[in-house]
Amino acid sequence: MKESLQQLKEHLGKVHNLSAASSVLGWDQETYMPPGGAAARARQLGTLSELAHELYVADEVGRWLEELAPYEAELDFDSDDASLIRVARREFEKRRCVPAELVGEMARAASLGHQTWVQAREEADFSVFQPSLEKLVALRIEWAECFGPQESIYDPMLDEFEPGLTTARAQAIFDAFRPPLVELVAAIAERPGRGVDGSCLDGRFEERAQWDLGVEALKVMGFDFERGRQDRSAHPFTTSFSVDDVRITTRFQADSLTSALFSTIHEGGHALYELGVSKALDSNILGTGDSMTLHESQSRLYENIVGRSRPFWRHFYPALQAAFPQFRQVEMETFYRAINRVRPSLIRVEADEVTYGLHIILRFELEQALVTGELAVRDLSAAWNAKMEEYLGLTPPDDAVGVLQDVHWSGGTLGYFPEYLLGSMLSVQLFERAQAEIPDLISQIEAGKLGELLAWLREKVHRHGLKFTLDEITERILGTELSPEPYLRYLRERYGEIYQV
Amino acid sequence: MKESLQQLKEHLGKVHNLSAASSVLGWDQETYMPPGGAAARARQLGTLSELAHELYVADEVGRWLEELAPYEAELDFDSDDASLIRVARREFEKRRCVPAELVGEMARAASLGHQTWVQAREEADFSVFQPSLEKLVALRIEWAECFGPQESIYDPMLDEFEPGLTTARAQAIFDAFRPPLVELVAAIAERPGRGVDGSCLDGRFEERAQWDLGVEALKVMGFDFERGRQDRSAHPFTTSFSVDDVRITTRFQADSLTSALFSTIHEGGHALYELGVSKALDSNILGTGDSMTLHESQSRLYENIVGRSRPFWRHFYPALQAAFPQFRQVEMETFYRAINRVRPSLIRVEADEVTYGLHIILRFELEQALVTGELAVRDLSAAWNAKMEEYLGLTPPDDAVGVLQDVHWSGGTLGYFPEYLLGSMLSVQLFERAQAEIPDLISQIEAGKLGELLAWLREKVHRHGLKFTLDEITERILGTELSPEPYLRYLRERYGEIYQV
Repeated sequence: MKESLQQLKEHLGKVHNLSAASSVLGWDQETYMPPGGAAARARQLGTLSELAHELYVADEVGRWLEELAPYEAELDFDSDDASLIRVARREFEKRRCVPAELVGEMARAASLGHQTWVQAREEADFSVFQPSLEKLVALRIEWAECFGPQESIYDPMLDEFEPGLTTARAQAIFDAFRPPLVELVAAIAERPGRGVDGSCLDGRFEERAQWDLGVEALKVMGFDFERGRQDRSAHPFTTSFSVDDVRITTRFQADSLTSALFSTIHEGGHALYELGVSKALDSNILGTGDSMTLHESQSRLYENIVGRSRPFWRHFYPALQAAFPQFRQVEMETFYRAINRVRPSLIRVEADEVTYGLHIILRFELEQALVTGELAVRDLSAAWNAKMEEYLGLTPPDDAVGVLQDVHWSGGTLGYFPEYLLGSMLSVQLFERAQAEIPDLISQIEAGKLGELLAWLREKVHRHGLKFTLDEITERILGTELSPEPYLRYLRERYGEIYQV
Repeated sequence: MKESLQQLKEHLGKVHNLSAASSVLGWDQETYMPPGGAAARARQLGTLSELAHELYVADEVGRWLEELAPYEAELDFDSDDASLIRVARREFEKRRCVPAELVGEMARAASLGHQTWVQAREEADFSVFQPSLEKLVALRIEWAECFGPQESIYDPMLDEFEPGLTTARAQAIFDAFRPPLVELVAAIAERPGRGVDGSCLDGRFEERAQWDLGVEALKVMGFDFERGRQDRSAHPFTTSFSVDDVRITTRFQADSLTSALFSTIHEGGHALYELGVSKALDSNILGTGDSMTLHESQSRLYENIVGRSRPFWRHFYPALQAAFPQFRQVEMETFYRAINRVRPSLIRVEADEVTYGLHIILRFELEQALVTGELAVRDLSAAWNAKMEEYLGLTPPDDAVGVLQDVHWSGGTLGYFPEYLLGSMLSVQLFERAQAEIPDLISQIEAGKLGELLAWLREKVHRHGLKFTLDEITERILGTELSPEPYLRYLRERYGEIYQV
């Protein structure tokens, strides 16, 4: 028994190492790789994915798992060993359904797709990316079909990023959330400019000063630059090579101070999660965050609940004023309202918290339409623009700020967007619990002391890595499951106060 | 037959992709990886090496090679297919001797060794690195012993970087080279300062301007930044992820203009080699330069024969004067003599061409002493300093500029240094041949036109990738083998003219 466990651990340790190697190659691809590197990079990522897959689904893994079943039954469900066996079995059974060649082909298509997306985005022309996306969607459908008949072909795609999540459940949550959200958006829209003057955010902001301010924010959050770094990329992301090497990226816009700053805080939230995984899990498949809802709950918590709050800015506003002296003439309250201004906008990652949900629901619907065949890829740009008009009353002037704005589809990633909204909901549930358990949390944040919050999140969420599903972990922390209600209440309170609605 | 060949190609393509992935991880380790990443990086590199090794030595590879023997016999020796089969057989037979676990252990030790070397170098203290080096040397000896009894245990180490090279052959070449070299060094030493004033190279040189000047030199050479890039590292190196993604690194010293510049030109020479490999070989094991003597012949050709020549500086000196205006008062001839000043120095990569050979012979002797057991690792620092005193009349003030100066041993690389000197010898043979075939080569260089030289080197050397051994390729280009005579003649001419000896 113990020997099978040891063999399983060593074997899956190799899978983990291959997957970390893929992450390094992916990071390089999006940060430093010269254009010429694309073709070979796709082949390299294809081989790494194929080999990792072959190792994962090897017959001996099935044998070890079978031998370990009685041992697993004796163990505490929450123990590292039981969790490893449980998660390995879940993934083994899932991956066994998929042929290795398909895995390799998907990895190659994802890598090449990313290159054409970057190019299409530069040219603001969806048609450049269209053939790649057609291939990526077709492969993703072929992949989903490997799992046999499903209630929805979109289910396995959600499950990939949020184990256990179904389309029906996500739909039910969004159905409950959307009407009151639309109501709130409408109520705010009737009070334009009500005490909110965004003009202090207009101007040009020097990149070096933006970079330094972002780094300062990361340090306040507790990001450890000995165990991670920040670089530039076309679309911000976080990636982990181990619990001691977590990388984030950012991008800068000369005419926006908030774009890079809040993106940095967002990715910093992801990074703190990965940096907080227990070292005991590091050398194996459990050594990374898995539930993307949990992951986004961390990034959105830091970005919004903390990062756009008055208490945070009571501490951090002097740093911003030092970096950008024009803010010395601006009251903190004016700045606070400006960064929380609600108005329909084109870009998801720059959207205010209130309209953000509509950006996600739009993508949730388009993704389903794509994979069920209701919508052809060639019609996606038009469908995008129509929905933007319908939900947000805006039409993108070009594809770069429309259908091409997000990186996800460039790698064949479908089923990830809903987690942003689910994570935002969860972030409020978690923060409220943290507040209940740390009575002076708000005054700590006002003093720029985020250490106790981080310690709480580490204890409750981060350290578990891949051990628990979303429901398992919310049950443990909250005694309940994910719900949109606290999030709605939070939005109504914060923005009700600002807009007096 | 054709089917076996196709299978062999696909299979070795995967080996090639794994090895390229290792190169990406190695590059990241030396350029951007935060300190925390070291432990996991070692595990990742261990897994990649082990899996690449296992794939290479798989039984089916032996079967395909056997099936392909009659087909290979029909093919032209120089054809891509015959070369693939021949090289695959050579490597298969060699690698079969080594257990996969040892390969993995060596990769892990190399990765960790690099980290301790960086630290030891910062602290200028060999004892920090000593335990790592002891392990690396022991593993390298264990590895060499896998090949059975050899004339010298050092032979497989030379063979690793220069297939077919033996200790006896390298020794014979160096034995013929050393006495006349020592004579030349002594003759020059008797004429100190003879028309050579190095004071123009004293001063502080702003890093940004150094970087830009290096980039300009790379562009003159023909380095394509769409297919490669330059970054910073503790020790300069070149690495190739494919023929369209070749990276070089450099480092800067505020008090030296020439250190980074000539290092950049040197690495640029390596990079042009990798960028010039035929695209038909790119997706397989032949798609990279292999013979390190050939590789160093390219880097040393650009660094010295071209890069320290009057014709090159007739074109490039105005660029240097623009970057560093203090040189506007300095005659080009003064500068030319300064960059060719001969005097014993501590650092190999900054040594003048004449004393350079002594730095190599010192390492060649110390490496042999280490692996034959004549010299214990703990005595290496003292032995280094004693030999420096004996050969160059200098004693390093600390280990950072002594035994710790080179990166090679940090990764367990033994048997590489001799190729620098052999490559320098070969570079003169190649350049003389190029001059014979391109009659106006010198005036092209004077005009900053290095394209025809590059095309010649591509045609004769680069495009072949891993197809031929050193002897096979010198036979094809020169009709003869590597010899120290032309190099000696070249040194006597260039430095005889400067020093009038």
